[in-house]
Amino acid sequence: MRSREVPLLLRYRVAPSLALAAVLVAAARAEAPSLFGFGPEAGATQRALEERFDAGLDPALLREWMKRLTAHPHPVGSPFGREVAEFVAGRFREWGFDTSIETFDVLFPTPRTRLVEMVSPERHRARLAEPALEGDATSGQTAEQLPLYNAYSVDGDVTGDLVYVNYGVPADYEELERRGIDVRGKIVIARYGGSWRGIKPKVAAERGAAGCLIYSDPRDDGYFQGDVYPKGAFRGEWGAQRGSVADMPLHPGDPLTPGVGATSEARRLDRGAAATLTKIPVLPLPWGDALPLLRALGGPIAPEAWRGALPITYHLGPGPARVRLKVEFNWRLVPARDVIARLPGAEQPEQWVLRGNHHDAWVNGAEDPVSGLVALMAEARAVGRLAREGWRPRRTIIYAAWDAEEPGLLGSTEWAEAHAEELRTRLVAYVNTDSNGRGFLSAGGSPSLERFVDEAAREVRDPQRGVSIAERQRARELLDAAPTARREIRERPGLRLDALGSGSDYTPFLQHLGVASLNLGFGGEDRGGSYHSIYDSFDHYSRFGDLDSAYGVTLARLGGRLVLRLANAEILPFDFTPLADAVARYAEEVEALDRRLREETEEQNRLLREGTLVTAADPKDPFVPPAPRPAVPYINFAPLQNAVERLRASASGYAEALSARRGKPIDLAHRQELDRALRAVEPALTDARGLPDRPWFRHLVYAPGFYTGYAVKTLPGVREALEGRNWARAEEQVAAVAARLEAAAAVIDRAAERLPTAP
Amino acid sequence: MRSREVPLLLRYRVAPSLALAAVLVAAARAEAPSLFGFGPEAGATQRALEERFDAGLDPALLREWMKRLTAHPHPVGSPFGREVAEFVAGRFREWGFDTSIETFDVLFPTPRTRLVEMVSPERHRARLAEPALEGDATSGQTAEQLPLYNAYSVDGDVTGDLVYVNYGVPADYEELERRGIDVRGKIVIARYGGSWRGIKPKVAAERGAAGCLIYSDPRDDGYFQGDVYPKGAFRGEWGAQRGSVADMPLHPGDPLTPGVGATSEARRLDRGAAATLTKIPVLPLPWGDALPLLRALGGPIAPEAWRGALPITYHLGPGPARVRLKVEFNWRLVPARDVIARLPGAEQPEQWVLRGNHHDAWVNGAEDPVSGLVALMAEARAVGRLAREGWRPRRTIIYAAWDAEEPGLLGSTEWAEAHAEELRTRLVAYVNTDSNGRGFLSAGGSPSLERFVDEAAREVRDPQRGVSIAERQRARELLDAAPTARREIRERPGLRLDALGSGSDYTPFLQHLGVASLNLGFGGEDRGGSYHSIYDSFDHYSRFGDLDSAYGVTLARLGGRLVLRLANAEILPFDFTPLADAVARYAEEVEALDRRLREETEEQNRLLREGTLVTAADPKDPFVPPAPRPAVPYINFAPLQNAVERLRASASGYAEALSARRGKPIDLAHRQELDRALRAVEPALTDARGLPDRPWFRHLVYAPGFYTGYAVKTLPGVREALEGRNWARAEEQVAAVAARLEAAAAVIDRAAERLPTAP
Repeated sequence: MRSREVPLLLRYRVAPSLALAAVLVAAARAEAPSLFGFGPEAGATQRALEERFDAGLDPALLREWMKRLTAHPHPVGSPFGREVAEFVAGRFREWGFDTSIETFDVLFPTPRTRLVEMVSPERHRARLAEPALEGDATSGQTAEQLPLYNAYSVDGDVTGDLVYVNYGVPADYEELERRGIDVRGKIVIARYGGSWRGIKPKVAAERGAAGCLIYSDPRDDGYFQGDVYPKGAFRGEWGAQRGSVADMPLHPGDPLTPGVGATSEARRLDRGAAATLTKIPVLPLPWGDALPLLRALGGPIAPEAWRGALPITYHLGPGPARVRLKVEFNWRLVPARDVIARLPGAEQPEQWVLRGNHHDAWVNGAEDPVSGLVALMAEARAVGRLAREGWRPRRTIIYAAWDAEEPGLLGSTEWAEAHAEELRTRLVAYVNTDSNGRGFLSAGGSPSLERFVDEAAREVRDPQRGVSIAERQRARELLDAAPTARREIRERPGLRLDALGSGSDYTPFLQHLGVASLNLGFGGEDRGGSYHSIYDSFDHYSRFGDLDSAYGVTLARLGGRLVLRLANAEILPFDFTPLADAVARYAEEVEALDRRLREETEEQNRLLREGTLVTAADPKDPFVPPAPRPAVPYINFAPLQNAVERLRASASGYAEALSARRGKPIDLAHRQELDRALRAVEPALTDARGLPDRPWFRHLVYAPGFYTGYAVKTLPGVREALEGRNWARAEEQVAAVAARLEAAAAVIDRAAERLPTAP
Repeated sequence: MRSREVPLLLRYRVAPSLALAAVLVAAARAEAPSLFGFGPEAGATQRALEERFDAGLDPALLREWMKRLTAHPHPVGSPFGREVAEFVAGRFREWGFDTSIETFDVLFPTPRTRLVEMVSPERHRARLAEPALEGDATSGQTAEQLPLYNAYSVDGDVTGDLVYVNYGVPADYEELERRGIDVRGKIVIARYGGSWRGIKPKVAAERGAAGCLIYSDPRDDGYFQGDVYPKGAFRGEWGAQRGSVADMPLHPGDPLTPGVGATSEARRLDRGAAATLTKIPVLPLPWGDALPLLRALGGPIAPEAWRGALPITYHLGPGPARVRLKVEFNWRLVPARDVIARLPGAEQPEQWVLRGNHHDAWVNGAEDPVSGLVALMAEARAVGRLAREGWRPRRTIIYAAWDAEEPGLLGSTEWAEAHAEELRTRLVAYVNTDSNGRGFLSAGGSPSLERFVDEAAREVRDPQRGVSIAERQRARELLDAAPTARREIRERPGLRLDALGSGSDYTPFLQHLGVASLNLGFGGEDRGGSYHSIYDSFDHYSRFGDLDSAYGVTLARLGGRLVLRLANAEILPFDFTPLADAVARYAEEVEALDRRLREETEEQNRLLREGTLVTAADPKDPFVPPAPRPAVPYINFAPLQNAVERLRASASGYAEALSARRGKPIDLAHRQELDRALRAVEPALTDARGLPDRPWFRHLVYAPGFYTGYAVKTLPGVREALEGRNWARAEEQVAAVAARLEAAAAVIDRAAERLPTAP
């Protein structure tokens, strides 16, 4: 690991040679400091271009577009959804992009019957409706609103005793087991949070439950967090969260066409064979509907961490509350309309830089996704202006507005699957945004782009505090960290990209195609509870979001810089040292996980042997001690450790070779060759066999967790095999990851060889 | 530090010599193992006595007495309080004790006027009353119940904007300051918990508040914790907590007679000069009364940890809620009646073993204190039976039932002050109990008695699980500990006594007189919310407490063993190694505190210097960065470290000398001398100058915290000087503690010299 004590400028911008001290001083004096991927001259030109780009951003336009695009609900397949796509396409065209709307036919169920009724100890029928509110102009568009439901629930009509399962993740069911509670044949009620929502019915079904309700506890996004809408931003008694419950960790996209684009000719699965539909019926509830059900539960008191903010004693059940859940859906194919806008590259048109944000919304979607979409539009408009003024990018720039993200990344996934071959050979990087708000930069993505993002984030100012967005993010991170963790943050050379799991449109590009990807946004100072409700409206966002579009413009500044630099760079701005560092950290984590599992298993077995668990248990409470578990064997991590060292050496070799060039110009032929080599590093981290039990996910470094849904699992094959105590699989996966890291190292070596040395 | 790897039996019962292996084997085989403080013969006799003692315990009697003693409210000065004292005295007499009722005249205010009214934004007057409940037979005894109030609040009539201050401890006011909120002239509303209640008005007054309300949030003992009374055991909407708010960390006991017994002739302070009365008016509220006030607060949202379980968004204020608080009291002297029952010792009547529990209650007091009182009575009755059968203790046994504990340990404190000289020369140890319940042993006290208590706790069976109460406690402690802390618990030779702060009648004996003391009780499996309310009734306790008196009898078994062994031991069962170990731990803690303060101060100053706090702050929220603080100097802990080593050496020396005797008999003259020396160790830990700013508290190892009230501060002079950043005082206190530890070591050396060696 290289030293972290060297001042940043020295480390990043010049080779570590005393002879270069003069260069360093000169660089520090120069008005335009060096730019990663550009020689001094090209860098100066690029910065001048970016100044013109910035001048083309107008916050008033973002607000105007948001007002227009949130005027009506616009889920996939809706009339206003079509208008949104056409409006966005029209703007792209107007701004000079070669624009098309590419349509896929995707399965999108909408509800026909929704019933939740407590049948005993008393009858009570859930309202399942969000009321119109005065002061929220669009909340009364009832006819156009999708009702409260969870997409890709199966049809069903089930009745059973109710059990409260907290967040409904596997650990919660272990707690229930210890109390002797079995959910077989029961209706479970889980609260939102703690996992992606689709995990809840998946785990419930695995445990034998007959149906699943998911409600919004005020502890998590209601009055416990802040005043409720319309007084404040948080979710009220009758607000609830729509959302997909497809088994996305298996694969996102259209459930009927896994792995291929859902074109009109595509072969479709029978619905019964679609693996990502739920196994049991599911519906979401506002807490106003959940309260009578939860209040009617008996049985043990819920563990303290399970209790929400409702003014009741949380019991677990089962029963005496007995609940009927009935749902039926219209199982229709609807058109998903992706807007694709191209600005062809002047020198390397076959190298593509892709920038996307979805345009569909569960309802009006001011925050999700329009706040991000209008930033992308502002960016495209300003790029278009540069083009109208005669500028052309070296590489092709593509702006995309995806449809059908909400039901499960359908627009982006089908497009990525339909164009997989082309994208694998052409796509340099994908830059994604989604909801945006007021606050702190959140940036995730491929570590090979970390230095590149850091450089741009140091140059974009935070609109509230005047420091750079990188500096503000670092301040937040410092304060949120335990004091003992602050040293590491202070000594880091720059920002660290978060590892990407899932939850937005980068997934098909990063985790299926293996394209280096980024996901960007701001937030943290405009928290609220309008997510996936009818109250995610222009009125709500105007009062509680990024009121003056200051962060919309900031996101456009950042996104625009990244796109323009990726498109124009003489040498694509990849640095693989952060990749090697990141993988080394992940490797340490899985080794630590193995140790922890061994220690915990030993300790648990010891407590069982000693009788401690029973001795300490209250005889008045039901208690079922867990079964002893086989000891955790030592896993051979050596292949992974060796591969990490190999990757680190290759990354250093490339960085040194790049440094040695000192920004000398590079001719087109070399650039083409180098682009191909650099672009090939991220795909080398994928395995065509995919992850165990979910071949669609091919990236062996990043995946959404099989039991977390959105939250990332790094080195997922290894980590999830350990978590599942499948030791043989863990060793296989160590070998598989090691092989991909070695392959990536070899590609990096090739790229280093292709770097023409300075004369 | 001695090794913790040696098996327990070897470590405790025989000297570490190979030649003694045979003894060890023999001891393990013997039916009656050795007994600490007794030779083999005396030990066997003692055990036979204890079997007879156990046979004299009858759970039905505990229940019968509880029913009788909780029939009416019996606070100090009440008619039924007098009946309780007389009933208990009558039983003691009946059982053969030489019994008297010793009366003190103490200040005990009761309310004349109580008003809490929100005057804006709307008018709302608090009910301040706990309603009678069906199914609770005594809850309707309105005429005899003390109303909801906090004793020793001053009179006052104040109006001000309301501010929510969480638990109202100093750290909470620092949080408020960071948000620019000043409580000067305001009415603060604090929730119960987080400190002893008397701290809340004390800190509020220090910060300039005009009045203080204290309410019971359902998060802490209401519906969040479990079903509310009468369905469950927890506090309902209109239940509230009475209690004293005198400044007990200054001194407990009668506010008008600090340091002397409140006899009829005692010189009394003017009420205006009484230091322990509050500075501002105070009243407690049920949450039903607090809810409208809290709901009417504006201002910033309370930090997450401050939010309770009420179905509102917790705001801090100040205002717009504006509140008037008016209280007036009858400031009367009332008689506090201590019941004192003596069983004179046959051989050393001038050596006293004292055993006490209070008899006064805020209302009916089934749990607090009758559950403990009836265990003490059962114990006294069984001891009395032994005496009637002809047995006599070697030393004098005194059973005490204290009055006026609830308003501030008045009965015990005045008695201890009135008899201070006699007690200092005669009292061998004090064994206290108070509320008792179902669950786990809780044992606190002087570490010199740790081995003694551990031995007895291994011999008393838990009535629910059949293992010893020591083993069950250890199982609970293991599970509650972080896995990393379990090794230390597993390797400990036996149970560890908790350090005593305050909150019950041991305080005058331990912390003022320096008598080795213990405090014992069971609980943890009968949690509820009846504390200091009219619902702490026989009905409540019979349904949710120690239903069948099984733990009452268990407490009597334990307490009786301790009393009988202390009274009969040939050599008083003190072991000073646990004392040295405990003080060594405390010394490490204060050194760690000093390091932590230095690191935190440096880090905080650094964050201020870097601007991180401001950069990360949300510009929409008020934020006042704290002022930088002077660096924390290094403190000279060497005197303390040296004194700890000296104490450790003396403790080992005594233990070795004791071991070498191998239980040989000891004649009366030697025993007398040895008793005096051993008894003198604990007083050596006191300093006649007392703690800084609170001379009544003389023990330099244990005190209730100046800002915690009940919770202990070990090495309080040093620790609180550090916490208050008074570095000069910290060094002075290090020297003062070191001197007392050296003195105690010298006394232990004297005791070792007085141990007649084996022939």
